[in-house]
Amino acid sequence: MSGLESFVTANRDRMLEELKALLRIPSISTDPAHDADCRRAAEWVGDHLRQLGCPTVEYLASATHPVVWAEGPPAPGRPTVLVYGHYDVQPPDPLDEWTSPPFEPTVRNGDIFARGATDDKGQTFAIIKAFEAVLAQGKPPVNVRFLIEGQEESGSQILFDLLAKEPQRVAADAVLVADTPYYLPGWPAVETGLRGLCYAEINVRTSRTDLHSGLYGGAAPNAHETLVQILAALKGTNGRIKIPGLYELVERPSKEIRDAWGKLPFNERRFMRDEVGAKALTGLTKYSVFERLWALPTFEIHGIKGGFTGEGAKTVIPAEATAKVSLRLVPKQTEKKVQRLLAKAVKAAAPKHADVTVKFIHGADPVVVDVVSRPIELLSQAFKEVEGRGVVPVRSGGSIPIVPELGKAGAPVILSGIGLPDDRLHAPNEKINLEQVWKGARVFGRFFQLMGEG
Amino acid sequence: MSGLESFVTANRDRMLEELKALLRIPSISTDPAHDADCRRAAEWVGDHLRQLGCPTVEYLASATHPVVWAEGPPAPGRPTVLVYGHYDVQPPDPLDEWTSPPFEPTVRNGDIFARGATDDKGQTFAIIKAFEAVLAQGKPPVNVRFLIEGQEESGSQILFDLLAKEPQRVAADAVLVADTPYYLPGWPAVETGLRGLCYAEINVRTSRTDLHSGLYGGAAPNAHETLVQILAALKGTNGRIKIPGLYELVERPSKEIRDAWGKLPFNERRFMRDEVGAKALTGLTKYSVFERLWALPTFEIHGIKGGFTGEGAKTVIPAEATAKVSLRLVPKQTEKKVQRLLAKAVKAAAPKHADVTVKFIHGADPVVVDVVSRPIELLSQAFKEVEGRGVVPVRSGGSIPIVPELGKAGAPVILSGIGLPDDRLHAPNEKINLEQVWKGARVFGRFFQLMGEG
Repeated sequence: MSGLESFVTANRDRMLEELKALLRIPSISTDPAHDADCRRAAEWVGDHLRQLGCPTVEYLASATHPVVWAEGPPAPGRPTVLVYGHYDVQPPDPLDEWTSPPFEPTVRNGDIFARGATDDKGQTFAIIKAFEAVLAQGKPPVNVRFLIEGQEESGSQILFDLLAKEPQRVAADAVLVADTPYYLPGWPAVETGLRGLCYAEINVRTSRTDLHSGLYGGAAPNAHETLVQILAALKGTNGRIKIPGLYELVERPSKEIRDAWGKLPFNERRFMRDEVGAKALTGLTKYSVFERLWALPTFEIHGIKGGFTGEGAKTVIPAEATAKVSLRLVPKQTEKKVQRLLAKAVKAAAPKHADVTVKFIHGADPVVVDVVSRPIELLSQAFKEVEGRGVVPVRSGGSIPIVPELGKAGAPVILSGIGLPDDRLHAPNEKINLEQVWKGARVFGRFFQLMGEG
Repeated sequence: MSGLESFVTANRDRMLEELKALLRIPSISTDPAHDADCRRAAEWVGDHLRQLGCPTVEYLASATHPVVWAEGPPAPGRPTVLVYGHYDVQPPDPLDEWTSPPFEPTVRNGDIFARGATDDKGQTFAIIKAFEAVLAQGKPPVNVRFLIEGQEESGSQILFDLLAKEPQRVAADAVLVADTPYYLPGWPAVETGLRGLCYAEINVRTSRTDLHSGLYGGAAPNAHETLVQILAALKGTNGRIKIPGLYELVERPSKEIRDAWGKLPFNERRFMRDEVGAKALTGLTKYSVFERLWALPTFEIHGIKGGFTGEGAKTVIPAEATAKVSLRLVPKQTEKKVQRLLAKAVKAAAPKHADVTVKFIHGADPVVVDVVSRPIELLSQAFKEVEGRGVVPVRSGGSIPIVPELGKAGAPVILSGIGLPDDRLHAPNEKINLEQVWKGARVFGRFFQLMGEG
């Protein structure tokens, strides 16, 4: 048994109590009523890191949602690893679907249930315990820095602003982000890419006011009809997005990458039936499901506002209609470029008699991480030693806006966590498997050691 | 000056007070809080007809919204004219847009403003005053019967049920309905047709629950996307409805009718700009605006429900979407036939992986009235004598569900009123022009006399 394993095994009970203490704090960053709780969570993390031996602990850029900055004991001449994580959590609604209350962490069958268990308190905690375990072995093998924010669930604006002013914060030899799951139990993963996002509202106005369909139907334009025509023009029934120029910007993953995805255990039928809950999978079906989810852009309609949607029958010709739509973006589709393409395509599909506008309300650039970096090799080796299997390269179809900023000083960003796919992040009964946390402490600890060995 | 004109002129002030008394009653049939007011309005009409000399007055089929049935003094051997009208009114909202309160009738510049002024209290009142004026001249020239209901604005179910049980109520030589306007000031009109209606909800379900577009976008079906595809398949950008079989059921108005419409004074540019408030008129533009509004079917989207339409950006793939749609129907498109065609076309446009249903929630068959009936000729003659111009044949793009029932015993139904196009029915500041009411009393009185002469 390694020193790390002995340490983790010997200290499990205490560590579990510490994790529970962190999980008890309802640090919901989207709700100002929980500002003081967010501050409490930040201080719990900062105090804990100081107790573990960090000579420097700072609370930066905000009184209510400070970025916790901590530096471990110096390891002169050794590499620097920056750890990113977040102490804030999603709201716990709907409360009545929780088996045990979201802020009363409860262990059942080896899982600990609480809001934030996997996203991201439990995962960040695993790295902190790795740091503690490594220090318990003797001299620090690397310089460890912690950048733990409190606004990941609400836009990260404070951290964006901080890094714009103090870009040297991310100067490191590797950035470790544990905010994603294993591919499957027993299959550690490294995210080699995240899709970006371009979220927009398409508004159509066709007349001054709503009109009576009996009196004017047949001659008056209908805003919903025009919007439907525009939306139908933007995507074919075959799943192909008909925004000129969009696919030209797609950088297809290499054959090696696609072959690696092809070797992942995956049952398409079960995915369709049990995860998606649909009778068919759609999209560009000549590409694999992984390529469609991770490496191809999407165009989704989220909802359509306007007209009459109440009970019964109102015969109104709507004067105005608004669709909420978004595209997921893949390299090299930057948000800005895709905004231009979408606006142009909408304009081309709009009839002259309608006033049509596109408003952009949210977005993120896509991210690709070089999968062959030395730090990722070392992390994979750490996983192999502890788990018996190295990391498999996967991507995520989702978006984490801050990730590009973390890599801006040139450090490879490693997105690799110890959650499991069924952890129910953002949903009721969120949990993390405790065995995964203890394994995580060993893996990340071993990673620090390997980084120190070079 | 005719006897009718002298009578109306001599009694104007009293009649105006009577009209005000009727307009003061807030007989809103869609709101149960006004049940007692509806009953009060029914009794006002019944009492008034009894005072004018009706030996028979009955309140039928309902305690709160009775159908008022009244028979004038018998005119043995003479024809029978059935008068249809309604004493109920639309809700007055939005209240703050009224210049004077909706149930405090106020005269300004020769117009009387109140909810129900033109729809339909003022118009029914004009016929009642015609009846009074005729009786003042001596023996009744015709048998007059009144069928004045209190649920026209809320579905007419009570009257439908009554006429199903007592179909002889509509046995007459003519049915007079004054619930429509002149074509223009100085241009009395007879409606020779009403469009029918087929109102439906198209529901699409594509997955068990809403899904996260980051995790599943690219492979999961989107209910709004499917609904948009179906709606786009049902109507072309050229305005043509793509429901197979629909246009085959259209009976085009004769060349004479279309020529008559072509002679109506009409400024398409002003209609587009001032009435519709749009930059273009749409639909099957190779047909005239009148043909599109009165004699061609429509397909309108009224609203689309489901997904996310709140503030901000939620990246949900909707599992369910529902569109409210309706078709206006023209002869010989019965509601039942069109229901079948729509259901079939939706099914044909739906992809296999989606659960798509069509639910029909409201409707009416189209109506055509034979424009060359003897009673219409006589009414036209009455208008010519009073107004200097006979009726022009027009149609209405709207629907009055009870009208087919009124003609079921074979009597020609005459839809001809004395409102003006700017009376703002169903809207704030509804009014009727008092000169129109007094002219109406003379016109309808003269019609009774001419019917009596045969």
